[in-house]
Amino acid sequence: MKQGIIFGGKSFEHEISIVSAITVSKKITTIETFIFLDDKHRFFLIPKDKMNAKTFSSFAFEKCTELFPCHNGFTSKGIFKTKVDQTVFINMVHGGDGEDGVLASLFSFYNIDFVGPRTTASVLSFDKYITKMYAKELDIDVVDYVLLKRDEALDIPFDYPIIVKPLSLGSSIGVSIVKEEKELAYALDTAFEYDDQALVEPFIDGVKEYNLAGTFAFGEWKLSFIEEPEKESFLDFDKKYLDFSRTKSAQEATVEENLAQKIHEAFKKLYGNYFKGSMIRCDFFVIDGKVYLNEINPIPGSLAHYLFHDFPTTLSDTMQDLPVHRDIKASYHYIDKIHATKGK
Amino acid sequence: MKQGIIFGGKSFEHEISIVSAITVSKKITTIETFIFLDDKHRFFLIPKDKMNAKTFSSFAFEKCTELFPCHNGFTSKGIFKTKVDQTVFINMVHGGDGEDGVLASLFSFYNIDFVGPRTTASVLSFDKYITKMYAKELDIDVVDYVLLKRDEALDIPFDYPIIVKPLSLGSSIGVSIVKEEKELAYALDTAFEYDDQALVEPFIDGVKEYNLAGTFAFGEWKLSFIEEPEKESFLDFDKKYLDFSRTKSAQEATVEENLAQKIHEAFKKLYGNYFKGSMIRCDFFVIDGKVYLNEINPIPGSLAHYLFHDFPTTLSDTMQDLPVHRDIKASYHYIDKIHATKGK
Repeated sequence: MKQGIIFGGKSFEHEISIVSAITVSKKITTIETFIFLDDKHRFFLIPKDKMNAKTFSSFAFEKCTELFPCHNGFTSKGIFKTKVDQTVFINMVHGGDGEDGVLASLFSFYNIDFVGPRTTASVLSFDKYITKMYAKELDIDVVDYVLLKRDEALDIPFDYPIIVKPLSLGSSIGVSIVKEEKELAYALDTAFEYDDQALVEPFIDGVKEYNLAGTFAFGEWKLSFIEEPEKESFLDFDKKYLDFSRTKSAQEATVEENLAQKIHEAFKKLYGNYFKGSMIRCDFFVIDGKVYLNEINPIPGSLAHYLFHDFPTTLSDTMQDLPVHRDIKASYHYIDKIHATKGK
Repeated sequence: MKQGIIFGGKSFEHEISIVSAITVSKKITTIETFIFLDDKHRFFLIPKDKMNAKTFSSFAFEKCTELFPCHNGFTSKGIFKTKVDQTVFINMVHGGDGEDGVLASLFSFYNIDFVGPRTTASVLSFDKYITKMYAKELDIDVVDYVLLKRDEALDIPFDYPIIVKPLSLGSSIGVSIVKEEKELAYALDTAFEYDDQALVEPFIDGVKEYNLAGTFAFGEWKLSFIEEPEKESFLDFDKKYLDFSRTKSAQEATVEENLAQKIHEAFKKLYGNYFKGSMIRCDFFVIDGKVYLNEINPIPGSLAHYLFHDFPTTLSDTMQDLPVHRDIKASYHYIDKIHATKGK
């Protein structure tokens, strides 16, 4: 089984995905196949030695072989076909296409193996409002929230400061901290540039944050260590961007045994059955010893390799124990019965 | 804009979809394009005069033109290409593929217009456990439930009788009413034939059931009348199957004004933003005057045409006011900045 990466996507996180894919390709040298999805939804096969930022920003990728999804893989057009099959792809398309269920569905339709959230898991994590209901259903605390629709009357039931987020976007894009009411309209305008709905939460200054990544493969949990992310990166897209190109390991946080266990338990509940086949990172808040889910990253930047003691093995295990599709054969039992009844 | 139907699918409801599509094609004679999805995930263009059950049960469809999705439509292979474009499709693929978000994603990826649930709406309605959390989030009551995973210890917190359902399947397939504990193992076996998880609820004998269908188009709600479905059809797949081929109008239920309003309100909340572009049917229970959501059918059998006073107009309005995709262009702002910093 060969290993590949799919990256890019018609998404506000297009660039981030490129950086993330380049980073992972340097970490995992066994990856040989690189498929780029451009913002016109075309797939291109990128030679390994062209895996650098310039290939994309200069549009040189357009000279690479264009591929089309087909059953069990990808193929080019024309007489001498390039075929890409028997490959497990890592879905590294952050944001739209990659995390909203579109690519997951496409891959499942064409029976292409991939590491990443399946359609249901994508929806549970991409839409921040649905993530809240999912966490609550699992008895995991979340910060209070209201959902605002574009052109809807503003009624914020929280004291300022508040935080305004586009409903379904990652990497802090379109997110604002609003200190007083007069800044609200601008923050909502910004959020509505990216989505028709926005989620508003009280902003908790100085809250403790902990991140944990992991996967479930071969009947076992493979969790990373817990990181306390650097505070200043909280809302800064430029810094986050550099985060996606992190190559060094993170610093393991000093966390009390009891708290670490709570974080582990919350992670396992959230991962559940739905996230099988993916390596996710959950970002938690801790307030008065209670663990709150902040967000689920179903495709964390550079797969959060920097949190794992042995990233290559964790990834390789995930790639080798993917969810299995149930084979369904159409039956014509009832139609045949009706025909028989009609005497045809 | 031409009108088409897509039907079939790799699904336990494959046959039902065929019957449903044939029924709708008789109701709406302006539909000219019929695309069949077989259980090998191949698309075929079915001529209008071949739209009968035999075409499928005899595998005659395999002689029809095979199509492949492409940007804005479908195309055949070979020198003389058949193109299907500028068509709005009604997604009539019940169950897997059609209702789980796979086709919705495929259509959205290829920019093909369609009536039916989008990816998020599919996940909210296809997975019965997620439907429960969604309804609760909207303050709509649901019947109590537990989720059972295959090979998990049985611990049913309800008195018998109970009802056991595969987590994500429609049309009563795999559903059993269990009167006493000794019947439970068999019921679970049946459910697990179709899904790895099962939802268990107390079974409420003789509960009042009401169905309401509708859509939101051009800024207005277009709701059907309320039906009280016939009781005996509750669990009988054969009868349900015939339901999908219903051609006559249903009987409007006699419902108190106050209750009708509660049902309408619940429907509108559930439809919300997520179901835009689809015509759905919500099935409710009423217990002591309180409205409970039983299930959301995002692609009801034969589109529940039998519940509408003017089905053709309702469908046509839905087809003409579909959710609009946000156009996203990739930017290379950060990559360019990094290059500049590096002095490249």
